[in-house]
Amino acid sequence: MTEITPAVPVTWPGGARCAVAFTFDVDAESPLLSTDPSLADRMGVMSHQAYGPLVGVPRLLDILDGLQVPATFFVPGYTAHRHPGAVRAVADGGHDIAHHGYLHESLVGVDERTERDYLERGLEALESLTGRRPSGYRAPMWEMNWRTPGLLHEYGFLYDSTLMDADHPYELAVGTDGRSLVELPVSWALDDWQQYCFVPGFSGTGLIETPAKAIELWEAELDAMRACGGLWILTNHPFLSGRPGRAAALRDFIARVREHDDVWIAGLDEIARHVRAQGLAPRSLTRPRPAAEDHA
Amino acid sequence: MTEITPAVPVTWPGGARCAVAFTFDVDAESPLLSTDPSLADRMGVMSHQAYGPLVGVPRLLDILDGLQVPATFFVPGYTAHRHPGAVRAVADGGHDIAHHGYLHESLVGVDERTERDYLERGLEALESLTGRRPSGYRAPMWEMNWRTPGLLHEYGFLYDSTLMDADHPYELAVGTDGRSLVELPVSWALDDWQQYCFVPGFSGTGLIETPAKAIELWEAELDAMRACGGLWILTNHPFLSGRPGRAAALRDFIARVREHDDVWIAGLDEIARHVRAQGLAPRSLTRPRPAAEDHA
Amino acid sequence: MTEITPAVPVTWPGGARCAVAFTFDVDAESPLLSTDPSLADRMGVMSHQAYGPLVGVPRLLDILDGLQVPATFFVPGYTAHRHPGAVRAVADGGHDIAHHGYLHESLVGVDERTERDYLERGLEALESLTGRRPSGYRAPMWEMNWRTPGLLHEYGFLYDSTLMDADHPYELAVGTDGRSLVELPVSWALDDWQQYCFVPGFSGTGLIETPAKAIELWEAELDAMRACGGLWILTNHPFLSGRPGRAAALRDFIARVREHDDVWIAGLDEIARHVRAQGLAPRSLTRPRPAAEDHA
Amino acid sequence: MTEITPAVPVTWPGGARCAVAFTFDVDAESPLLSTDPSLADRMGVMSHQAYGPLVGVPRLLDILDGLQVPATFFVPGYTAHRHPGAVRAVADGGHDIAHHGYLHESLVGVDERTERDYLERGLEALESLTGRRPSGYRAPMWEMNWRTPGLLHEYGFLYDSTLMDADHPYELAVGTDGRSLVELPVSWALDDWQQYCFVPGFSGTGLIETPAKAIELWEAELDAMRACGGLWILTNHPFLSGRPGRAAALRDFIARVREHDDVWIAGLDEIARHVRAQGLAPRSLTRPRPAAEDHA
Repeated sequence: MTEITPAVPVTWPGGARCAVAFTFDVDAESPLLSTDPSLADRMGVMSHQAYGPLVGVPRLLDILDGLQVPATFFVPGYTAHRHPGAVRAVADGGHDIAHHGYLHESLVGVDERTERDYLERGLEALESLTGRRPSGYRAPMWEMNWRTPGLLHEYGFLYDSTLMDADHPYELAVGTDGRSLVELPVSWALDDWQQYCFVPGFSGTGLIETPAKAIELWEAELDAMRACGGLWILTNHPFLSGRPGRAAALRDFIARVREHDDVWIAGLDEIARHVRAQGLAPRSLTRPRPAAEDHA
Repeated sequence: MTEITPAVPVTWPGGARCAVAFTFDVDAESPLLSTDPSLADRMGVMSHQAYGPLVGVPRLLDILDGLQVPATFFVPGYTAHRHPGAVRAVADGGHDIAHHGYLHESLVGVDERTERDYLERGLEALESLTGRRPSGYRAPMWEMNWRTPGLLHEYGFLYDSTLMDADHPYELAVGTDGRSLVELPVSWALDDWQQYCFVPGFSGTGLIETPAKAIELWEAELDAMRACGGLWILTNHPFLSGRPGRAAALRDFIARVREHDDVWIAGLDEIARHVRAQGLAPRSLTRPRPAAEDHA
Repeated sequence: MTEITPAVPVTWPGGARCAVAFTFDVDAESPLLSTDPSLADRMGVMSHQAYGPLVGVPRLLDILDGLQVPATFFVPGYTAHRHPGAVRAVADGGHDIAHHGYLHESLVGVDERTERDYLERGLEALESLTGRRPSGYRAPMWEMNWRTPGLLHEYGFLYDSTLMDADHPYELAVGTDGRSLVELPVSWALDDWQQYCFVPGFSGTGLIETPAKAIELWEAELDAMRACGGLWILTNHPFLSGRPGRAAALRDFIARVREHDDVWIAGLDEIARHVRAQGLAPRSLTRPRPAAEDHA
Repeated sequence: MTEITPAVPVTWPGGARCAVAFTFDVDAESPLLSTDPSLADRMGVMSHQAYGPLVGVPRLLDILDGLQVPATFFVPGYTAHRHPGAVRAVADGGHDIAHHGYLHESLVGVDERTERDYLERGLEALESLTGRRPSGYRAPMWEMNWRTPGLLHEYGFLYDSTLMDADHPYELAVGTDGRSLVELPVSWALDDWQQYCFVPGFSGTGLIETPAKAIELWEAELDAMRACGGLWILTNHPFLSGRPGRAAALRDFIARVREHDDVWIAGLDEIARHVRAQGLAPRSLTRPRPAAEDHA
């Protein structure tokens, strides 16, 4: 098989050593409804998820505005339909709004028609609300199939932020004819879900960490990424990190990040455009094949 | 669909910036028995749960009395039947006693007749023991169905403390004719169960945190809530937080909270009456519908 | 139903405020073999469990000897058969050896004949190895059925250390004619299993805490128990706490405990004899009955 | 049955009190593919695993090179086929490369022909890439059956690093005629998987610890092992500990270990040769038999 090569470092604007993006997945009710529609019958858990757009988003927008930091919000189409005010407020704040499925649907094992439907419904929901077509995509649950990048390219997306095989952004080859998608890679360690999420019967075992612990984890990775010159992307969920104590700790952390003069903070759309402008050679990722084939 | 609007801040008595309530769910054996009646055959786990009313409640009452802090105790009817002495001691201490089901039954998927039976049996158990009809309710496992608020209103409850979509209390609309219930929202982060509970074969994975960690989490949320002006409700379980080390740490924490001159500490009954007196416009929450309907 | 009354404080020797016991459950392979005999085919996990008697026990005995602290070791009969040298060393060290089932069998749902067989085989294994009949018992997994205390009394045990409904030791009524068993209660928070144990496919999710965290938890409970005047029992497993770093931290902790002049450290046999000499009135515990019966 | 005897201390070169080995399991995609081949369809999780050879291995090799510390890399044959560049870089760095299955296959319940096939395919993959036959083996998931040691000896391996019943290395008897394999024992506490790994639908519950916590745990065990005179083996996975913040913390930790003048740091191959040269009497481990047989 063809060997996969590592992503290579890129240069950042203004002599910054590394790039930083704060991203927010405004999932609200959608991950639960796509996993099990009967969860809609549970008023308690629905209210837990609604906290995100109702309380978390305005609070986080205030924080970003106060610190003058641009961010990217990944918004399932369903969230735009059910909570249009929150999504409009994000758009009014000038932040990047990107695609995150219609109902936060899993892309594992779906057929192409279904996957296109998720893409189209999500696009329609965001465009009709904000008047702008999103340039970015993130797969629900950070999981896509091998067909997904090709579809994203076909639907005109500039970037995806789902994969985990690099510290640096790269051009992800789509097919073999030079087409590509800017990939802005993420990491499970830089996600508030693992630190805070508990939804009985849906997610989590009951572990709920302190904001101080979560941020210690994220800051350790950031400090090391500054030395590596890569792209550090944090992912928070307003239904989790919008809670008062967590939001306050995040605000203080973002303020500290701003103080670093070697860091470029930007929305993922701007970062993707910067990467695209560098004209990187696309990387080809290949699906692992059964062992019998692979060493033939 | 109709957009849900966020709850809005209320004013607090005496110029306090935020309100604080310490609440205790005196579950004892009931959550286990309603989940699986055969757990009654396990003498060990029954003794673990009985620690709550037998040891935890008296210890916690002493602490509250020593600090002159009023609290709310949510008591399943079964606890009142099996451990009447503990529940009488709570009443004698002047604390708010509220409804928490009869046997801590799940309200997910039950029919109306069954749900009414839970409400009626719980009311009967508390009234016959304390001579007072409770004004408050909290759904077992913080989970209700969409019918529940209407029933609570019909049975004369003033407040519920189950939902999670706000930092501020609000009037929860019941039907469309202006009736409402005071909702005093909670949060998974402000619950000792996730920090301490381990009952093999019933709950928990084995994670047991230190009291210092639990209280660091709660205090971080309180400090931020003081800035937000909301209502901060802590939920402890006497079978967990009644253990000596946890109770001592909780006592020291409550003592620190009392020192804040911007905080109003009260039972939920008193807080609910204060909220009711403000004449807030009721908020309507709506059940999410299948995606196909929602963007029609 | 008859109300259960709380255990009451006892006085301790020499004016001590509280009693402390360090206990060790020498489970080795037995919990795995009784859960699933095919686990014997896994050489790796068997070696993990064998670490307890082979390495942990000698190391812990050295620590106890160096600090001149008596302890209680709960030994399944199977451990005595498979690792007789380790068990003889415990006996030679002058420590209390107590019953812990034959193969660490669950007592949930077993019939009386089976339960008697476990008791008899465990007794036979310990007596034939040490020449002494154990006076104490602890149910595997800290779980017994309602028949167990009667059987323990019949087989001549003085004490049990399994239940969790008190901070103080008590006489547990067996039947209604005044017979009783000394109960020395335990707590999930005072057990190293939840802090350290990971055996893939058998126990644990992967969480492994630092010794510092485990001991912070235990010490917080001890400090509070000193104020409560109760009995503080720590339970460690040699296959876990016998590892070098954990044993070193435990050693330092025991040394600190010894410095408290208000604490009486003893084996559970000695503590049980002290309790028995106080002539306490037996407490009756009753099995919870279905709700329908209970409020009749 | 025959009693198992504990491993005994060995002497270390140059008067060192204990031996230290840093080991890396370059699992990449293999554990997922052997557990469920359909996981290959998930591009996200495949990219998560590929981070190990693509980014983690080069970064860790740089760290080892900078500190001039030799290490051992356990490499499934499939990793050598799919990521030959990473494996060649390990070999070029002069590190010990050892066998870790072909596709990280479980050895539980497999028949002999299958197990031989795993061994042969793994050997072929490593030899054809590096030109050297590995002298060491580690069973995938640290789990082998009772046939495995005999096969390892037959295939010419000098050492295995899978079992957990000792702090000291030992000669593991293979059969009854004096043949043996050097065993270099490990511990679940000295593995980054439990601290960092989260792969939804495959491993972990969501717990992700900070590098500081992981290293506090490892360092506590090391400090105590120095006093015990044993062999301390740390196991890291490049797809986990190769992330920037974790790698930086590991680098600082290795640097501290190097400062200890009582510690001998070496690859497991060198340690195994040192152990072999001591001419230790082989230890016999025996499979536990059903209880009925064992006390016959």
